[in-house]
Amino acid sequence: MPFQRMITLTTDFGLTEHYVGAMKGVIHSINPTAQVVDITNAVQSFDVLDGALAVSQAYHYFPKDTVHVVVVDPGVGGPRRPIIATIGQYLFVAPDNGVLSLVYEREERVSVRHITSEHYFHHPVSNTFHGRDIFAPVAAYLSKGVDTAKFGEEITDYVRFLAPTPKAMAENSWKGLVLKTDKFGNLITNISPKNIPQIFDGPSKTFKITVGKAEVTKLVSNYAEGAPGELFALLGSTGFLEISANKAAASRVAMADKGSEVTVTIA
Amino acid sequence: MPFQRMITLTTDFGLTEHYVGAMKGVIHSINPTAQVVDITNAVQSFDVLDGALAVSQAYHYFPKDTVHVVVVDPGVGGPRRPIIATIGQYLFVAPDNGVLSLVYEREERVSVRHITSEHYFHHPVSNTFHGRDIFAPVAAYLSKGVDTAKFGEEITDYVRFLAPTPKAMAENSWKGLVLKTDKFGNLITNISPKNIPQIFDGPSKTFKITVGKAEVTKLVSNYAEGAPGELFALLGSTGFLEISANKAAASRVAMADKGSEVTVTIA
Amino acid sequence: MPFQRMITLTTDFGLTEHYVGAMKGVIHSINPTAQVVDITNAVQSFDVLDGALAVSQAYHYFPKDTVHVVVVDPGVGGPRRPIIATIGQYLFVAPDNGVLSLVYEREERVSVRHITSEHYFHHPVSNTFHGRDIFAPVAAYLSKGVDTAKFGEEITDYVRFLAPTPKAMAENSWKGLVLKTDKFGNLITNISPKNIPQIFDGPSKTFKITVGKAEVTKLVSNYAEGAPGELFALLGSTGFLEISANKAAASRVAMADKGSEVTVTIA
Repeated sequence: MPFQRMITLTTDFGLTEHYVGAMKGVIHSINPTAQVVDITNAVQSFDVLDGALAVSQAYHYFPKDTVHVVVVDPGVGGPRRPIIATIGQYLFVAPDNGVLSLVYEREERVSVRHITSEHYFHHPVSNTFHGRDIFAPVAAYLSKGVDTAKFGEEITDYVRFLAPTPKAMAENSWKGLVLKTDKFGNLITNISPKNIPQIFDGPSKTFKITVGKAEVTKLVSNYAEGAPGELFALLGSTGFLEISANKAAASRVAMADKGSEVTVTIA
Repeated sequence: MPFQRMITLTTDFGLTEHYVGAMKGVIHSINPTAQVVDITNAVQSFDVLDGALAVSQAYHYFPKDTVHVVVVDPGVGGPRRPIIATIGQYLFVAPDNGVLSLVYEREERVSVRHITSEHYFHHPVSNTFHGRDIFAPVAAYLSKGVDTAKFGEEITDYVRFLAPTPKAMAENSWKGLVLKTDKFGNLITNISPKNIPQIFDGPSKTFKITVGKAEVTKLVSNYAEGAPGELFALLGSTGFLEISANKAAASRVAMADKGSEVTVTIA
Repeated sequence: MPFQRMITLTTDFGLTEHYVGAMKGVIHSINPTAQVVDITNAVQSFDVLDGALAVSQAYHYFPKDTVHVVVVDPGVGGPRRPIIATIGQYLFVAPDNGVLSLVYEREERVSVRHITSEHYFHHPVSNTFHGRDIFAPVAAYLSKGVDTAKFGEEITDYVRFLAPTPKAMAENSWKGLVLKTDKFGNLITNISPKNIPQIFDGPSKTFKITVGKAEVTKLVSNYAEGAPGELFALLGSTGFLEISANKAAASRVAMADKGSEVTVTIA
């Protein structure tokens, strides 16, 4: 078997249309034995931060040299550039709109190229579906071992945004937000042990978290520790504080959702 | 590695049950190294035209010789025939209910066989799930290189319908419809440059499109050209006219959906 | 190619987040050429019976030696044990919460081990995502041929529940329930020919089934036999009685859903 890099997809194309299927068709036409794995294709439509979160939570579990294709691309067909980023041990193919920001944040070695070699595109290139016509074929050629230098010149002014972090409001008070509600109804906040270590410091500290209509004062280490219907805080597998419930959707109990404000007060 | 044809799936079986998983199990039991790729399994339930659209938009991006399994099959267990169609460079396995109509339309060489060799079925054959018991195993044998002639006799009276096209209402007026609303809320119409070239002829022409509660008079070449919240027309990656919005669901803005009437007037 | 067992996934992790992608990343990091197939990742959240149903309906269609990973795990991080079960010709990796009960029911040979060898875990092991940190890596090592004995000691007190079966209420009267509503709106009940053979005995028998607001007195052998909008009973591909409609969602027509009571009276 010749050299092969695995390919993953993180997109907002959804599963109800043919979009992801067309991308995979293009990939397999170029590399019939490509291994393509979905991280998720259900990123919230047009939501670059949601895509950035998804890929940043999963890319590092894959074998080194994996090519991660990340397409949340509301600016498709406009001036934003298609890029290949070599970040740590991985390659990324994406629009240059900040969707790799949370990956840049986690790694030290970053090198970004502006993809300009139309030789590697699927022609004709549409104005509205570069996932199929640019990002998929470029990833397929990368999976076959084509060198990143062949796709275009290095750039240093790539787009990078900072993830929203909780803000200190007073000495022992912070305001954060719900980054996303997951399939279980867990409210994943933007609060990590780095931001407010006092929450996670063990049972002696007391805190009060408000989100939606709920007030949460209990920290647990796993979902089953909570009483039925009770809301609690825990450090989730994402590395962020979650507001959760035992066998219930915390989002419904708290009447909160993505974007909801989360306030934290330490006693 | 022996000869292998790739397999794709386009079905209305959904992702919430075990249906697609059972089909893949049957395929891998017959051909353990089969490569199976989903085009989509979220075709609207019972909707043969929706399945026809999905496969017609994606099949040609796959390597030649790919076996496309297309199962939208409300007549399962009744008199409709299971077929293998050789169309252009591809093989299709499907019920003979017209679900391949839009593929027939795009290709010149078509040869269809009625699948009758029960030897290639998964037994016992249920009355309600031929996806698992007939179409999946037949595709698996085809992927291993079994000749199409082994599965049954050629037929010429296969079912074929015409996709709905816009109708001329007056000299400069047409009535079309929304074929589907995609995950982004784009309203994909049945209007193509072949039908009403005047819409796409450049900025000098003026047109008025009505759909739902909206009136659209602007043509753009990509989504980012539109102002926030504004509805516009563009030629989508499907080859059809779309009514869309920039980072918003046009379907919600226009209050229109699949099946909505679209009227076009050229000034 | 070295010895390989295929891997399947049946989980409630959903497709909207990165959870399943992270599991696949861990698997491919350990076994780059693993073949991973989704049975479904849309099991109802926290619903062990729903997961048990899904895997029991699909596992036996896969090649022998397949490793089925089944993660519906509301007790993650608590005292419930992770297990490897050798059942018939297959291996299963799951939490010991009964999610394999319906598979145990179908097979004679069952041998279960408590997974304790942390050597095969992904470290650090989180408290809330053993799908990624325990079940995925264990499955990956099994797929490479590691012997089950290496993962931990055999146990016999594994958790096993009985699927809910219809109850006899009077001489010719039973009460069952809707196990699930599928994507088509079919109401899949817990009634099989073993429980009430009289329903399936052919046209001479008469029965009355009530579910939601509907009364059903007709048995058909496939969906297309029903008149439009009419509700009917049929023996579904799952082996259970379904209440269905022809090209319509029976759940909407009957105003019934998962958990609804189903009463059967034989005349």
